[in-house]
Amino acid sequence: MKKNLLFWIIVWAISFPFTQFGQTPSVQRVNPTNWYVGMKNPKLQLLVYGKNIADCDVKINYQGVSLDKVNKVENPNYLFLDLTISPETKAGQMDIELSKTIKIQKGKKKFIDQIVKITQPFQLQNRTKKPQVIDSKDFIYLILPDRFSNGDPSNDKFADMADTQADRSNPYLRHGGDLLGIQNHLDYFKELGVTTLWLNPVIENDQPQTKEGDAMRSAYHGYGFTDQYNVDRRLGGNEAYKKLIDAAHAKGLKVIQDAVYNHVGINHWILKDLPMKNWLNQWDTYTNTSYRDEPVVDITHGNKADFNVMQNGWFVPFLPDLNQKNEFVANYLLQHALWTVENFGIDGWRVDTYQYNDLPFMNRVNDALEAEYPKIFITGENAVQSIYSQAFYVKNNINLPFKSNLPSPNDFVLANAINDALKEDFNWGKGFNRLYSTLAADALYQDSNLNMTFVDNHDQDRYFSVIGEDLNKYKLGLGFLLTTRGVPHLYYGTENLTKNFKNPSDAEVRKDFEGGWADDKVNKFVASGRTEKENEAFEFVKKIANYRKNSEAITTGKLTQYLPQDGIYVYFRHTTDKTVMVIMSQSKEEKTLDTKRFAENIGGFSSAKNIMTDATISDLKSLKIPAMSFTLLELQK
Amino acid sequence: MKKNLLFWIIVWAISFPFTQFGQTPSVQRVNPTNWYVGMKNPKLQLLVYGKNIADCDVKINYQGVSLDKVNKVENPNYLFLDLTISPETKAGQMDIELSKTIKIQKGKKKFIDQIVKITQPFQLQNRTKKPQVIDSKDFIYLILPDRFSNGDPSNDKFADMADTQADRSNPYLRHGGDLLGIQNHLDYFKELGVTTLWLNPVIENDQPQTKEGDAMRSAYHGYGFTDQYNVDRRLGGNEAYKKLIDAAHAKGLKVIQDAVYNHVGINHWILKDLPMKNWLNQWDTYTNTSYRDEPVVDITHGNKADFNVMQNGWFVPFLPDLNQKNEFVANYLLQHALWTVENFGIDGWRVDTYQYNDLPFMNRVNDALEAEYPKIFITGENAVQSIYSQAFYVKNNINLPFKSNLPSPNDFVLANAINDALKEDFNWGKGFNRLYSTLAADALYQDSNLNMTFVDNHDQDRYFSVIGEDLNKYKLGLGFLLTTRGVPHLYYGTENLTKNFKNPSDAEVRKDFEGGWADDKVNKFVASGRTEKENEAFEFVKKIANYRKNSEAITTGKLTQYLPQDGIYVYFRHTTDKTVMVIMSQSKEEKTLDTKRFAENIGGFSSAKNIMTDATISDLKSLKIPAMSFTLLELQK
Repeated sequence: MKKNLLFWIIVWAISFPFTQFGQTPSVQRVNPTNWYVGMKNPKLQLLVYGKNIADCDVKINYQGVSLDKVNKVENPNYLFLDLTISPETKAGQMDIELSKTIKIQKGKKKFIDQIVKITQPFQLQNRTKKPQVIDSKDFIYLILPDRFSNGDPSNDKFADMADTQADRSNPYLRHGGDLLGIQNHLDYFKELGVTTLWLNPVIENDQPQTKEGDAMRSAYHGYGFTDQYNVDRRLGGNEAYKKLIDAAHAKGLKVIQDAVYNHVGINHWILKDLPMKNWLNQWDTYTNTSYRDEPVVDITHGNKADFNVMQNGWFVPFLPDLNQKNEFVANYLLQHALWTVENFGIDGWRVDTYQYNDLPFMNRVNDALEAEYPKIFITGENAVQSIYSQAFYVKNNINLPFKSNLPSPNDFVLANAINDALKEDFNWGKGFNRLYSTLAADALYQDSNLNMTFVDNHDQDRYFSVIGEDLNKYKLGLGFLLTTRGVPHLYYGTENLTKNFKNPSDAEVRKDFEGGWADDKVNKFVASGRTEKENEAFEFVKKIANYRKNSEAITTGKLTQYLPQDGIYVYFRHTTDKTVMVIMSQSKEEKTLDTKRFAENIGGFSSAKNIMTDATISDLKSLKIPAMSFTLLELQK
Repeated sequence: MKKNLLFWIIVWAISFPFTQFGQTPSVQRVNPTNWYVGMKNPKLQLLVYGKNIADCDVKINYQGVSLDKVNKVENPNYLFLDLTISPETKAGQMDIELSKTIKIQKGKKKFIDQIVKITQPFQLQNRTKKPQVIDSKDFIYLILPDRFSNGDPSNDKFADMADTQADRSNPYLRHGGDLLGIQNHLDYFKELGVTTLWLNPVIENDQPQTKEGDAMRSAYHGYGFTDQYNVDRRLGGNEAYKKLIDAAHAKGLKVIQDAVYNHVGINHWILKDLPMKNWLNQWDTYTNTSYRDEPVVDITHGNKADFNVMQNGWFVPFLPDLNQKNEFVANYLLQHALWTVENFGIDGWRVDTYQYNDLPFMNRVNDALEAEYPKIFITGENAVQSIYSQAFYVKNNINLPFKSNLPSPNDFVLANAINDALKEDFNWGKGFNRLYSTLAADALYQDSNLNMTFVDNHDQDRYFSVIGEDLNKYKLGLGFLLTTRGVPHLYYGTENLTKNFKNPSDAEVRKDFEGGWADDKVNKFVASGRTEKENEAFEFVKKIANYRKNSEAITTGKLTQYLPQDGIYVYFRHTTDKTVMVIMSQSKEEKTLDTKRFAENIGGFSSAKNIMTDATISDLKSLKIPAMSFTLLELQK
């Protein structure tokens, strides 16, 4: 019997649902990629991604592990498995068994059932990592990994990645810096007095170049993740990161990772086949965030529309905004944070674009991290202008309906005050009065000594340029940074007077560290490669930073500040045993400082050691203070 | 027997103590000058001043009154009597009986005892006054009494006062304005939409002229009290004040008195014979306050020396600083506040130099006033720059070891924001963004709708000059003032575009109100005396102020504000029934405003009435907004 076309169409139409129903499943990804036994929280939600897996039966046979729920979502290529891992569970390979019956065509009209089974191995490992405490005793050094040092030129670019270029002559493209380059300079950090490294994000950014203005730009900054569970190959991948961290720890250095919960890169694997539409914050037409904090902090007069745009608008078009109110998204991000600490052994987190995240979600992440790692350092980027706003986003002393549990803000308010103070002459509300006034509002924070303080970072004009390339001002600002309250960080290169404004772009303040590449003619990692002025700057930071390391007065002592007068700002850091006196002058003339006003802090001391010069001062009653000078005195009985 | 000089010296020396002991007493003053039965607090401390009264026996025979304690102090010319006035005490004359035995010389060697008795009458009166509520429903008009209107030229100057001059041609001397002058213009305030008058202090300032710079200056401002219980004769005295208040009340106007607890005038009667040295905050060498709020609000890093100078340093050399930690001083000031409400029937208080007072003392005064007059309006002058500082001094939402109970600040932070906003072009942190950002921090206050808001006052550059004499800006600022949260006040003359900067002195912003003196050629109390532009300004204020009176949405409704965009700042005032929409544009071009973003507040309304033009707007979807314009819409269903 001859069959015409119509017949075959009918056969196809009838069999289609069965064929669909029966399509062969496969597993492409499980995230987290592995997990740990002995976590305080026994719950784990595995994201399993694979074609046609939604209708699989799932079984897990592993002592101590129960599969509580199999969650199906809009997209049949995903399953989210809710597990409980009991406290006594042992490490080992836990197989995830997926099975389903598919229909296989046998002959023209006949279909038979066939059971397809997939065994997906999954490692449960013992916990081995424990973050070290990071706090005001530390001195953090911020590195943009692509721009610091190229330790392995073989990983600068890959033909199979979305962006295939690396070109040091182009400020907007990748330059080849990597984790090995950082690891090669651990002694440099130690010499400078640094205790902790913070790297701009190291996670894979397999992003295509984007056009901004006339130029094509690479995602060399690292803020567009494309796979949370891989460190970027061009930085050296997961193994290089582990090695760097182990080597840093071995040298007594700690490592802070840069977290990005708010968004992912437009090329993130999951965007190509979203689990559900509301994995992202979706808008009918593209909507950018307003970048304003007020719609969130204005709990008295705010409105929902502005709040929504601020929180759920996208940061930029190529960084899709994650919907953290979606429980699956929330678990995905939160578990990645825990996994990162366990897998790499990092010591703390700096959270990017903190204020753009769903704040109840951020509280959950912070709680989850602190539950496993009590007192882990978490500092959030909130580029805000007002002290109220900055306090709103952290543990504060304000009665608010929403209480943030973030321990530490990146202290933009103080950073602005430092830069403004040094640009201005001393006056009623200007110059050092800005430092004084800013700190005078510290009662709004629960612990301002956890504020991460700085003078510039990767998004800002270079400090040395802002202050008019004035070495005296440079010392005043950095001297203040290293002796006032807070956890100070330096941006790479600031120690050797690296300059530039962001004009025409951010790339101007993200230049390569000279000496980080084998063919560099100048090597600023060593004194001989630095100019005399650069060495003066470097030695200044080195001296205070190394003194600070052993000064409990400076790091954990009380800060008592005095109203600046006559261009001179005086404050003390003191414990019951030790008192350090800081005298900052922005007067244009030498002054004689009568110390009677400081009796509360200076009383009982008869002499002092000038920490920067090692000179002894035998009479504290009146002090000669040079114009535009930073003086650090250790008081002695 | 002839006696030589030595003999008489010995006689004098022996008899001296007796003579001293026996000197005839007299009573010059009792403060308060009278008191009231039926006060919630039954305690009263009478200051009795008179030569040699310290060793008198004191008796009070008045039913219901007990004399609990007679307090002697350093100076024998004072007694402080602690009384309890039981609730059932009746009004009447309560005699204070003082008696002591003095020695009278009888013959050469003989002294006899004589009992001297003084009966000092003291009136206990019935309470008759009850302050009216002042809150965000009010519109306050601030008057400098010497500079507003001269109702009684016979009281301009007195030959028996320390300053005998009055001269309108001299900006630094008295000009003759008085309380009758104010009373003569009650209809003017009513027309403008004012509900409440606040007068700069009316209490006697029998101060000599002081030299500042090259000029001699009168205490025409009123901030140097010389006798708390007398209104200055040159303003009309106590009787004129009572008449003004009664007349104001009869017209439906309320009156706020300006309180000065921090200091008195250098010519205050008590300074000539201080009860005790620490009646004042005494310094070895003259010490001025630093005028900085930070030493007080900086509870985290502050020091005692700066705190002490700020609080106990003198405001200026001719205003001695009262020691409010001295219980007698505290009672003296506190009872005067209560007496003032009872005696004159004022409705509220504006407290001068609030931050310079001992803050626990201020809490006591505020508590004492609220105990007798629940919800009495008390607003404090804290000329500070930061929202944290401003919130610190009032009822706030911050967990601080010291909690101020002041209900309302004079909102200097918002006043600065208004002036700055109008001077600038619209930009990220500038222009109307300042208004928006300032209000976005209102969570720090317990009730920001009690903040007393303003655009200028007697210590500041005139608003119209600050904003470059631009009538559009004028309307924007005053339109905002009258429709945002808070209790607005206007400074006399601002309604008719009075100008000037404080250069060379404060007197420039304290000029006579034209038309307030009989010989004035121009009378700005009437439309015919104002220029066209001045009438436009006057009518603008009048229109909104009178609309506001009957708009619960504006006065007590919720404020919902939207992030300013494109130079346009939109906010709503709304109750369950009524919604008012304010659109402020500082764009230099006409704009079309898409109202979709405002759905939360505009939804459900289909049309609107433009309050300033009476025009009806039948389509709210998109609105044409003229450049530099203030629009006030009442939304309609």
